[in-house]
Amino acid sequence: MSAALLQADGFDAWARRQLADVETALETWVPLSAPAGLGEAMRYGVLDGGKRLRPLLVLAACEAVAGERAAALRAGVAVELIHAYSLVHDDMPCMDNDVLRRGKPTVHVKYGEAQAMLAGDAMQALAFEVLTPDSEPAVPPALQARLCSLLARSAGHAGMAGGQAIDLASIGRALDEDTLRDMHRRKTGALLQASVQMGAACGACTPQAWAALNDYGAAIGLAFQVVDDILDVTQASETLGKTAGKDQDHNKPTYVSLLGLPAARQHAEALRLQAHAALARSELGAAAGLLAVLADKVVEREH
Amino acid sequence: MSAALLQADGFDAWARRQLADVETALETWVPLSAPAGLGEAMRYGVLDGGKRLRPLLVLAACEAVAGERAAALRAGVAVELIHAYSLVHDDMPCMDNDVLRRGKPTVHVKYGEAQAMLAGDAMQALAFEVLTPDSEPAVPPALQARLCSLLARSAGHAGMAGGQAIDLASIGRALDEDTLRDMHRRKTGALLQASVQMGAACGACTPQAWAALNDYGAAIGLAFQVVDDILDVTQASETLGKTAGKDQDHNKPTYVSLLGLPAARQHAEALRLQAHAALARSELGAAAGLLAVLADKVVEREH
Repeated sequence: MSAALLQADGFDAWARRQLADVETALETWVPLSAPAGLGEAMRYGVLDGGKRLRPLLVLAACEAVAGERAAALRAGVAVELIHAYSLVHDDMPCMDNDVLRRGKPTVHVKYGEAQAMLAGDAMQALAFEVLTPDSEPAVPPALQARLCSLLARSAGHAGMAGGQAIDLASIGRALDEDTLRDMHRRKTGALLQASVQMGAACGACTPQAWAALNDYGAAIGLAFQVVDDILDVTQASETLGKTAGKDQDHNKPTYVSLLGLPAARQHAEALRLQAHAALARSELGAAAGLLAVLADKVVEREH
Repeated sequence: MSAALLQADGFDAWARRQLADVETALETWVPLSAPAGLGEAMRYGVLDGGKRLRPLLVLAACEAVAGERAAALRAGVAVELIHAYSLVHDDMPCMDNDVLRRGKPTVHVKYGEAQAMLAGDAMQALAFEVLTPDSEPAVPPALQARLCSLLARSAGHAGMAGGQAIDLASIGRALDEDTLRDMHRRKTGALLQASVQMGAACGACTPQAWAALNDYGAAIGLAFQVVDDILDVTQASETLGKTAGKDQDHNKPTYVSLLGLPAARQHAEALRLQAHAALARSELGAAAGLLAVLADKVVEREH
């Protein structure tokens, strides 16, 4: 990966190519053929929407270690399926009860609650199907097992689902910064960090680079959520494509409610710098350029 | 495995040992430590209840091919976690809205709907965590990948979740026998068949034995559901440990509503004989004795 990619133009061209491949893969692997409308609900929940940040992180980390792109594409689709299923379930009436997502009615509004729950369940299973192709030399069994391990642990009780449980228990309660950080690191951070790990697992990297990429993933994982908290109060629903102001409406603790807006912004910037420092420690040099731009994009995004 | 195990006494002693190990493994691997009550809800949903038929099938199939028991124990726990999560979600108000399971209040009655949904989600992820231990020589990475592949495909849109979608769409509608069979083969049969496949994958077996074990799994998978349909109308809730008569109450098509009770019983018996014929074709001989007894137990069970 040339240093020219550090420039936004090069990055944008790279990202467009990746996103096209991710959409094609999702189109191919999320089955329209699934029975009784299930496939339609699954596709509605994951196609044609979303920033695809997690697949981009997987693919950028894979390029940083000169890894196997076909494996990273599968990993990117798998992690996006986990992310998308979590949104489908999170939007349901028993959770956030949200009717708008990516500018469209949420899955349960369109297909009913039962089908939405099943679609989410089937999307989680599909993630592990995508990671375990029967005969694809580019994704040898040992890599399949490694990717399944990383994804399952980041999605489960110690990661995303655990963070959602803390979130559920914290509505209307004051959290200190440690607890809020722990919640966000699990709920959002774990899957973002796993995206970086899965990409790095598609190639070879030194223990030092692996540790540094983990630090990078942890920093941008938390930064993403801090920025989410900021956007929830500063942006309109039309810009976000989802209901704005809902943290406040639900009386949820956020970085903004805890620190105030200016300090939350400073915190996001500090995490961006931590991410860049971690990349410097990785000694991957220009190969990590895509990850560097992604760190900036995570913090500078407006939706 | 000696032919003596074909006798019920030997089988029962074997089954008691397996069930003790399965319970210990579930106790160990389903985390009480998961945050904000999530671990408690997960444990409530899977510990201290259930026939553990799927783990027994995995372990019996593993013995039939002289496979690696430590791997089969993980596979048995994983498939039980998938089964248990599907019950937690299936019992929720937006699905079957059931308040009684294994003689106890269902998970959402005890912990609320949001926690029940999260617990089910985390149990699915945990199944794949259990299958991908970091360093356990008894479960090499290639076997981990194979087990993840079999489990994901049986749990997802083409298997269990797909069958549930057909079930959902069929409430109050007359189904012909082909459609009913397709629904049951996916909804219940896929996971039971995968249990046999996962056990067989823990050892070496000839293509002929693999095909025969698949036929066995398909036969007992469907037999299990036919018997379930029968028990729903012939047994009291106290015996079943769940609400009896609910298929009829929900106006769901079943083998009993389609064929009548006597013909449904004949069908279950025919499937039992198919299962035995498949074991004979496997040429595994006495090693398949445990599977033979399990076929009888599936059909002769009273709850």
